[in-house]
Amino acid sequence: MLKVDVNCDMGESYGAYKIGNDAELMPFISSANIACGFHAGDPMTIARTISLAKADKVAVGVHPGFPDLMGFGRREMQLTPEETRDYMIYQIGAVQAFANVASIELQHVKPHGALYNMAAKDGKLSKTLIEAIKSLDESLIVFAPPRSELAKNAAKAGLRVAQEFFADRAYDPEGNLASRKEPRSVLADPKIVAERVVRAITEKTVVATNGAVLAIGDVNTVCVHGDNPSAPVLVRDLNKQFKNARIKMAPVHTFL
Amino acid sequence: MLKVDVNCDMGESYGAYKIGNDAELMPFISSANIACGFHAGDPMTIARTISLAKADKVAVGVHPGFPDLMGFGRREMQLTPEETRDYMIYQIGAVQAFANVASIELQHVKPHGALYNMAAKDGKLSKTLIEAIKSLDESLIVFAPPRSELAKNAAKAGLRVAQEFFADRAYDPEGNLASRKEPRSVLADPKIVAERVVRAITEKTVVATNGAVLAIGDVNTVCVHGDNPSAPVLVRDLNKQFKNARIKMAPVHTFL
Amino acid sequence: MLKVDVNCDMGESYGAYKIGNDAELMPFISSANIACGFHAGDPMTIARTISLAKADKVAVGVHPGFPDLMGFGRREMQLTPEETRDYMIYQIGAVQAFANVASIELQHVKPHGALYNMAAKDGKLSKTLIEAIKSLDESLIVFAPPRSELAKNAAKAGLRVAQEFFADRAYDPEGNLASRKEPRSVLADPKIVAERVVRAITEKTVVATNGAVLAIGDVNTVCVHGDNPSAPVLVRDLNKQFKNARIKMAPVHTFL
Amino acid sequence: MLKVDVNCDMGESYGAYKIGNDAELMPFISSANIACGFHAGDPMTIARTISLAKADKVAVGVHPGFPDLMGFGRREMQLTPEETRDYMIYQIGAVQAFANVASIELQHVKPHGALYNMAAKDGKLSKTLIEAIKSLDESLIVFAPPRSELAKNAAKAGLRVAQEFFADRAYDPEGNLASRKEPRSVLADPKIVAERVVRAITEKTVVATNGAVLAIGDVNTVCVHGDNPSAPVLVRDLNKQFKNARIKMAPVHTFL
Repeated sequence: MLKVDVNCDMGESYGAYKIGNDAELMPFISSANIACGFHAGDPMTIARTISLAKADKVAVGVHPGFPDLMGFGRREMQLTPEETRDYMIYQIGAVQAFANVASIELQHVKPHGALYNMAAKDGKLSKTLIEAIKSLDESLIVFAPPRSELAKNAAKAGLRVAQEFFADRAYDPEGNLASRKEPRSVLADPKIVAERVVRAITEKTVVATNGAVLAIGDVNTVCVHGDNPSAPVLVRDLNKQFKNARIKMAPVHTFL
Repeated sequence: MLKVDVNCDMGESYGAYKIGNDAELMPFISSANIACGFHAGDPMTIARTISLAKADKVAVGVHPGFPDLMGFGRREMQLTPEETRDYMIYQIGAVQAFANVASIELQHVKPHGALYNMAAKDGKLSKTLIEAIKSLDESLIVFAPPRSELAKNAAKAGLRVAQEFFADRAYDPEGNLASRKEPRSVLADPKIVAERVVRAITEKTVVATNGAVLAIGDVNTVCVHGDNPSAPVLVRDLNKQFKNARIKMAPVHTFL
Repeated sequence: MLKVDVNCDMGESYGAYKIGNDAELMPFISSANIACGFHAGDPMTIARTISLAKADKVAVGVHPGFPDLMGFGRREMQLTPEETRDYMIYQIGAVQAFANVASIELQHVKPHGALYNMAAKDGKLSKTLIEAIKSLDESLIVFAPPRSELAKNAAKAGLRVAQEFFADRAYDPEGNLASRKEPRSVLADPKIVAERVVRAITEKTVVATNGAVLAIGDVNTVCVHGDNPSAPVLVRDLNKQFKNARIKMAPVHTFL
Repeated sequence: MLKVDVNCDMGESYGAYKIGNDAELMPFISSANIACGFHAGDPMTIARTISLAKADKVAVGVHPGFPDLMGFGRREMQLTPEETRDYMIYQIGAVQAFANVASIELQHVKPHGALYNMAAKDGKLSKTLIEAIKSLDESLIVFAPPRSELAKNAAKAGLRVAQEFFADRAYDPEGNLASRKEPRSVLADPKIVAERVVRAITEKTVVATNGAVLAIGDVNTVCVHGDNPSAPVLVRDLNKQFKNARIKMAPVHTFL
């Protein structure tokens, strides 16, 4: 039986501002990426989200981003390696503390937004991220696009890598995510999403925006975006399709 | 031979903004209170300050404050207990991560500015702070004014308390720090400061702003403010006077 | 025919974070209080909200708050008069610039959250706010609770005051808003809200939480909270009841 | 007699954090670029700096930057045109309000740090900046490098341009500022600085890092950096050399 992880960005609310349906989605995923207070999230939100995840037996990871709340971490910023490293350590440490208080182990790290996209392509940046993660905890799994610089450098450093597929995002012909600014870059139809995901897991391919069939390698974890208004329906449908396709959802640390 | 700790707020720079003479003061103190990024400090500053402390064999503590960089944590804010608790856990966790990477142990927690002053008087707030600290690490020593609510609640919870004396600040007749807004509330004359400190340690008294002699109990740790322009001279003089008075400076965890 | 203004806090979204149903509510109100980027709001949100207001012929005011995005300006902060004054000038100036670009005049200033509540009771704080407003533009109308320090000091300084009634909030026996932390402090039933508002306008009374009937004086402007999930229904119902009660809704500058 | 303006970034302190020697430098310059609270500066600092400038009859301009206090606006950020425009309007408006209260007119706009450098080269970005400035006040002078996209687009839009020369920074062979990360990119020797400036004004040339003599066109305004520790000496020396060379320092609006 095939196993796959389903991850979702969680804990991205901030003070009075709510984003995502964390409580509603949590029962249908296996890994939660917790925002750390830089691009999103605040201390109370971290505590509450970890508590939700624990109650639903969902594995917890760190979701560090650029220090850009106004841009939700989606704008490229040019940082020095020292800045990158220390921003990572800070954010991981903050979430680590709440995990300690809740008596749970951190499973993974998934960089957010522009940081994720830049690290996927930039060898130097991805090395810096990996070194920061490794300096704190060598058991942390790194979520990364297949064949990305981030995936390669994590593997080279001896960290486990979970290859990630984006359930609700279109892929361009080069295998990168189509920009959110493009029309139809965010998929909303639960049926189409579920079919793409099952195909990605079982056949290891995805249909790009130009109709080409791309080979994407093993899919270890599937990302669903919690700020997609269709997310609650998407994850429920995905859970159903997994049963039909004899795919078992489980936190990635249990099978990687 | 009497032993005493000398602590200083450190790592309060922020990006391009520099406060304090951390590198200059570090060799003359025994404990460093590291700002956490809320009232002051940033990830790179935390890393650099811990590195400085380690090189000078200075013990490292956490210096959490209100989320008010524009006010440097010196303005009272009314937080809920949940906010207080989670802001503490977040800040301690962030510094803890850098301590882990540097392979050092955290020694203590000292709240900053308005949070320290409010916790000294407010039983409920101080209990919340103590619970947050205890939930993370029971070995952390709490820096607090003698007989304060913070000291009492730390002791009641089973945490060690370091009773603190402020070297460069005037005391009012009730034994509280005179407000920074008052004239002569910050002492700059190294000779006067050193005499007050030695008297506080050896006789357990301080002369208040009205001339009264106040009993202050055991002094375990003496605070020198790094943003006091006289600080570098103050700490050198203090070190000399300690030798004369046969007082040994040492991190508080070594003798408490 | 009686005239009354209906105001709503608007432009409180921040980056990717959305609060309120600005576009939906705008056609049913007569004055918009625009957040300024301190407790909420960001430059793009200010621009968009002023554009919405202009399209619906809604008068625009400034909604300054404490510099506390994480607490949405609802937490008391202790500021010096200089801080208060300059934070006001800064926020009014920022919104003023967008009003200039849109070729509209600012109508009013309404402090937000904890700043509003503190200024209602604190003579010194309210004087400082009023001086700041007056130093920029003497034609700005001040929104304030009847008989509050804010109302008194605005009138004393020669500024026009719009006495405000809160449509969707319970009043305690002293005539203050019941705390949001109390049960039933936020009213959601559109029928009850509309009845209270009409009574407040026509009879100048409100029923307090203990059942007492309080005299509240002239009501010039009625506040509906956009973050109340019932807000869109509330404002539509209010518009209907106004017609039945022969009350005409209009921006306060047209009749004060 | 030749006329030239001398400008300096001012008001870049933030809360308890001090940068620059504003009070010391102000008497020796003719134009002050006031930080707006995004990359640096806060409302009280803006008010105080405008007050200082007014007392010394120094013309006041706006110094907007990226919303990146931690990076002091020196890190590239990728903004949409809408973000760029609205961040500009917000910052100019905030400073405008303090100028109004002080009864002075704004003279100019000079973007800060990475925003200045990016706008110098990026046609689209510079157009967006210029449109934002023009939408607020067509009389504002734009400070820009000679022949830059920023200068060209300002002129094309009908705004006056002050061509800027950097007194204390090295130029690369292409006529761009050498990166701050390069050794010797910041010049500290007052004699060398004064000679370069006089040469730039009188001969319209500068010697680049490779020894080449570059033609730089008319110099209307000379920038001295206030965070350069040598700044107070530099500006005094510059004033002396100007007398010797029969160059008159004056705010740029008086002669452009």
